[in-house]
Amino acid sequence: MPENTSEDRWRSGIEALLSPRSVAVVGASTDPNRIGGRPMDYYNRAGFTGALYPVNPTRKEVQGHTAYPDIASLPGPVDFALLAIPAPGIAEAIDACAQKDVKAALIFSAGFAEVGAEGATLQADIVARARRAGIRILGPNCLGMFNAEIGHCPTFSSALQEGPPEKGRIAMVTQSGAYGTHLLNMARARRMKVGTWISTGNEADITLAECLEYLVDSDEVDTIACYMEAVNDRDRFFRALEKARANRKLVTIIKVGTSAAGAEAAQSHTASLAGSDESVEAVLRHFGIPRARTTEEMLDIVYAASLAPPPKGRKLGILTISGGAGVLMADAAETAGLTTPPMPEAAQQKLLARNPLSSPRNPIDVTAHALNDFPLVSENLQSMSVDGGYDMLISFFTSWTASPVLGPKVQKAVLDGLTGQPKKPVVVVCQGSDAVMASYEAHDILTFEDPSRAIRALGHLADFAEAANAPAGNPRDLPAIPADVTLPAEHVDERQAKQILAAAGINALPEEFAATPEAAADAAARIGFPVALKIVSPDITHKTEVGGVALGLADADAVRVEAAAMLARMRDKASGARIEGLLVTAMATDGVELVVGVRNDPVMGPMVMVGLGGIFVEIFKDVVLDIAPVTPAEARRMIERLKAAALLHGARGRRAVDIDAIADAVSRLSVLAARQPDAFDSIEVNPLLARAQGAVALDALIVPTQLTAPAKESAA
Amino acid sequence: MPENTSEDRWRSGIEALLSPRSVAVVGASTDPNRIGGRPMDYYNRAGFTGALYPVNPTRKEVQGHTAYPDIASLPGPVDFALLAIPAPGIAEAIDACAQKDVKAALIFSAGFAEVGAEGATLQADIVARARRAGIRILGPNCLGMFNAEIGHCPTFSSALQEGPPEKGRIAMVTQSGAYGTHLLNMARARRMKVGTWISTGNEADITLAECLEYLVDSDEVDTIACYMEAVNDRDRFFRALEKARANRKLVTIIKVGTSAAGAEAAQSHTASLAGSDESVEAVLRHFGIPRARTTEEMLDIVYAASLAPPPKGRKLGILTISGGAGVLMADAAETAGLTTPPMPEAAQQKLLARNPLSSPRNPIDVTAHALNDFPLVSENLQSMSVDGGYDMLISFFTSWTASPVLGPKVQKAVLDGLTGQPKKPVVVVCQGSDAVMASYEAHDILTFEDPSRAIRALGHLADFAEAANAPAGNPRDLPAIPADVTLPAEHVDERQAKQILAAAGINALPEEFAATPEAAADAAARIGFPVALKIVSPDITHKTEVGGVALGLADADAVRVEAAAMLARMRDKASGARIEGLLVTAMATDGVELVVGVRNDPVMGPMVMVGLGGIFVEIFKDVVLDIAPVTPAEARRMIERLKAAALLHGARGRRAVDIDAIADAVSRLSVLAARQPDAFDSIEVNPLLARAQGAVALDALIVPTQLTAPAKESAA
Repeated sequence: MPENTSEDRWRSGIEALLSPRSVAVVGASTDPNRIGGRPMDYYNRAGFTGALYPVNPTRKEVQGHTAYPDIASLPGPVDFALLAIPAPGIAEAIDACAQKDVKAALIFSAGFAEVGAEGATLQADIVARARRAGIRILGPNCLGMFNAEIGHCPTFSSALQEGPPEKGRIAMVTQSGAYGTHLLNMARARRMKVGTWISTGNEADITLAECLEYLVDSDEVDTIACYMEAVNDRDRFFRALEKARANRKLVTIIKVGTSAAGAEAAQSHTASLAGSDESVEAVLRHFGIPRARTTEEMLDIVYAASLAPPPKGRKLGILTISGGAGVLMADAAETAGLTTPPMPEAAQQKLLARNPLSSPRNPIDVTAHALNDFPLVSENLQSMSVDGGYDMLISFFTSWTASPVLGPKVQKAVLDGLTGQPKKPVVVVCQGSDAVMASYEAHDILTFEDPSRAIRALGHLADFAEAANAPAGNPRDLPAIPADVTLPAEHVDERQAKQILAAAGINALPEEFAATPEAAADAAARIGFPVALKIVSPDITHKTEVGGVALGLADADAVRVEAAAMLARMRDKASGARIEGLLVTAMATDGVELVVGVRNDPVMGPMVMVGLGGIFVEIFKDVVLDIAPVTPAEARRMIERLKAAALLHGARGRRAVDIDAIADAVSRLSVLAARQPDAFDSIEVNPLLARAQGAVALDALIVPTQLTAPAKESAA
Repeated sequence: MPENTSEDRWRSGIEALLSPRSVAVVGASTDPNRIGGRPMDYYNRAGFTGALYPVNPTRKEVQGHTAYPDIASLPGPVDFALLAIPAPGIAEAIDACAQKDVKAALIFSAGFAEVGAEGATLQADIVARARRAGIRILGPNCLGMFNAEIGHCPTFSSALQEGPPEKGRIAMVTQSGAYGTHLLNMARARRMKVGTWISTGNEADITLAECLEYLVDSDEVDTIACYMEAVNDRDRFFRALEKARANRKLVTIIKVGTSAAGAEAAQSHTASLAGSDESVEAVLRHFGIPRARTTEEMLDIVYAASLAPPPKGRKLGILTISGGAGVLMADAAETAGLTTPPMPEAAQQKLLARNPLSSPRNPIDVTAHALNDFPLVSENLQSMSVDGGYDMLISFFTSWTASPVLGPKVQKAVLDGLTGQPKKPVVVVCQGSDAVMASYEAHDILTFEDPSRAIRALGHLADFAEAANAPAGNPRDLPAIPADVTLPAEHVDERQAKQILAAAGINALPEEFAATPEAAADAAARIGFPVALKIVSPDITHKTEVGGVALGLADADAVRVEAAAMLARMRDKASGARIEGLLVTAMATDGVELVVGVRNDPVMGPMVMVGLGGIFVEIFKDVVLDIAPVTPAEARRMIERLKAAALLHGARGRRAVDIDAIADAVSRLSVLAARQPDAFDSIEVNPLLARAQGAVALDALIVPTQLTAPAKESAA
């Protein structure tokens, strides 16, 4: 939706899509197996609470509802129109909707942008007509959506053939209808109540980000799962995720197309621009979005969040009847980033006295002895809450829960063990029927059969809670950079680049431009030896490769000789390049070299990056990205996330360097870049030399928009 | 079992455990819910094919079988005795078994080594009695086992209450009975036929490794899942895994206690020695054992291997009806280490002509159009085999398979698509009932609901096949090291350590011992400047920390002055240390520094290790381990597995170094260490300087057994 539409109007359009009071089904069929018949059938079975008007020129009645020959004939106002007709009829239908003051329409049919240029033209025409009339569009080329709360089911997804959707506080937004159906079936098989489901298709108008932004504000939704192939409107996407965090609603996202092979497949599938996966990863981390790597992981996260409150911390208490399962769960906790501190000594002694065969530390192994003494389970669970202070609890009872005799005893013991305790995430690892699982879920207790999956989900809940509680960066903490410092429109040489950065507060070493070898020698004498000498040319970006860099020149003679030789080399190795002269620079090696930069991701926009130079970046990909701009405090957290951060603190006998100075440079570079997002492809300070006091840019490269930086010069 | 027992005798003992012709159940109960009653019930329901003798002094008959008052009264020979009686009666029962010439006995009861010193004594006594009589023991403190093929069910695992085990070619060996039961229930819920299941308990006699060794040779078993907490007999474990590879039987292992928290829990649970997880990882890789990280991953691997043949390579063909699912599967393939090459251009054109809406590259998206034209599925699948030459196929049909109308069409299309093609792993990602899934499995087609899990399992199959086909290291390729080169029994200084290594063929730079500063200066003149100077003392291992190392001394004067200063420093900083003199060494910096070593893992034995020095090891843990000894070819493969291997080949403008020389040093060190596994805790060459030609040990440390190396000096 264009930015010039007011927030109210935006909201009313999305509301009409999700919660219409009146619905027209254009192309409604009497056959519940046809694309135009299925939604009618689904509306009927779901008991839609509003007015439902089938539009069908040849029928008086469709599936129990009076039918109308066209949109114009509909007897009342229409909030929402489902267009279940082929592509060629859509434009006319949109115009008819406009006449009827319809607020939102949904287009099933394919044959638009996804089939090539002609389809794209058709799609653009339809969107233009809709925009003129203020109609929001979902689709085209989509499977539709539902809102179970009011029985609104404009979809032909086969998932609803098993029965109408159940009301529930989970929402799903998917950029693949078929995969969204698969997800829906999987969720239903796990007793998860998905009350809202939206397949966004081609996103000609309404995007996944818009759906997200609406849903994270909705009182009817707590938890949201997203299947995402591409982000089509970065700003709204970011806003939606920021709102989700502010509202403490868990959104989890599976982003596909992350691999080279996947990206290629996505390209042919959606024709979307491919951003880098590192950027996606950084954006999701920034907003505290648990990222699911597989379908099941996503469902596990949503399942857990839909029943359990966010944990207060990372401490996991483990109760088991099997020592082996206890060990496995302790391993899984470490993998998931959770801690398993031991019970306080006194509490251990008390539990041990009560059950001498038990292991009371954590994992607490009550052993199969609990079979004969179920209060043991309750007592240990109580002690884990009261004495242990764990933020989450997991207990392992394997198939005991499935037994008609033991099952109820286990459940009573668990519930007794939780009585009077503040709510926290609790898992029972168990086996049994759907009814057994549901009986725990009725008490907001999670059930899993694989303990590792349970603990992985708890780890995501802990990450989410931590991110939701973390202070957001305050724009007022961003460093002030004079308004007249701007990025260049054309390529600039190293010296100019460093001057721009210096104006933004990122220091460089003393350097002077010299036109001749003699002038270079004089400049070197002023700067102090040793010096470095570099060629200055707007046409040479790979100075080293053409012999345009000389380091450690110790006296004036050396400078003079090398300068002459370098100029001579350029005639040979860079013939045609405009040679402006030489740059004479002070030398420094007393620190740690970093790479600091901003990449302009085609999807996520300016992403600021920091890493140690050389092999750290190139072999181990040890870089951290975040959305630009970042405050110095945020930059510092980025730096501390580097695997090699210890080296900056002085590990391995090195001298500690000035991390605040690095953070300041990262922050300043991010501010400079973010305020001119359209001006550059990449900016890189490589290396930034961090010293005991301060940090200096030893080289810098600014690649304006459209000029692609040669791969070699950009890090990682 | 002690090594002096013959292979035949060993085999007959294990055979009596797994496939007895006659069984005594000592402590048999008439109540099928009691520990002594459950096995009787299970034997009856499973239809045991041999003779079954309940032993019960107070009953004439137990669950339909004539009962006998004691073991001595049994009417026929007894291969196997199940001792379902409390710990105090076990010793007497073993003696009675000895009289009856019983070959194997299984002890359920707890109260042995797992409860402390007294129990350990009791356990040792029982094992001694059994050994004298040639009786093999499973347990104590175990849930028993079963062999479904003959209905042999000496177990009280609740898993069998649902029904007798089905005959099948999957075996499970577990060091946790309760977790083994959990696994068994999960496997059964997935229609997997676990024909053999063994819970090893305390492993007082029979170990997991012995069970494995027997099972990988068994004609009745194809695939084995292992839940492992500890390896109690390394040599047999290695032998079993080597046999598994030779016999091309897939063994998958979940090893718990891998995290710090898990290891601590395992320690209190099993009191086993904790080896390092890096060693476990290296051992499993060495033998091509797919390592499962979670319970479900293990079951996925076994499930896949039980139905599908090992793939010929890593090429995965993807067929989908949903573009989104195709992208997701392409991502998952990359994560799993599989490739997804495109279809040949001509084949793509042909498929596109047949179905213009399809995407024929790979993933092949036939789109929902297949609903109206199922032969499309068959034709594309055929083309993927014939033209694409994929080693594995996965197809995504979501819930189509569940529909009574569509389901049979999908299945026919898939089967038609595979007709006439050589067998390979084929997955159908689908939803539906157990019966639907089983209908595919009947054709050896795998079914999964989560495509990522399916592909992860295929990745493991590919790893397994590759490892099974890889040439094993040939002991004849190990370098010959003179028999008189041995590891020292006591601490030796750096010079002596390097001399030992030099005798083993690992070169060092020229160096001389000097007692005085004057002698050091003379030695330096002979060696050539610059030189390094190091203190020689049996009492100082951290030479650098006490100022006992000086580098780059350029002339005789510098050597003389520094030597005197160093000796003076020692009196101050290392008072009490025996100072023998100084080591004068040639300097070299023209290469890449590596760390090469052998760690004597308490569980896995000598593990050889190689990595680049400094931050590579310390920050990024970029080291590769393998079982010592390794041949030079194996050492070379270790080196190539390093993330930083590219640096050795000359990446980033460095000079390529002599990798063969590194491999030779790694191999020699591994041979030296492996032939004296009891003589050392660790050996480390740090650094080994790899040069353009050759490699030299710049420093070396040999830590004899029982002398623990200070953590600082050992890498990673």
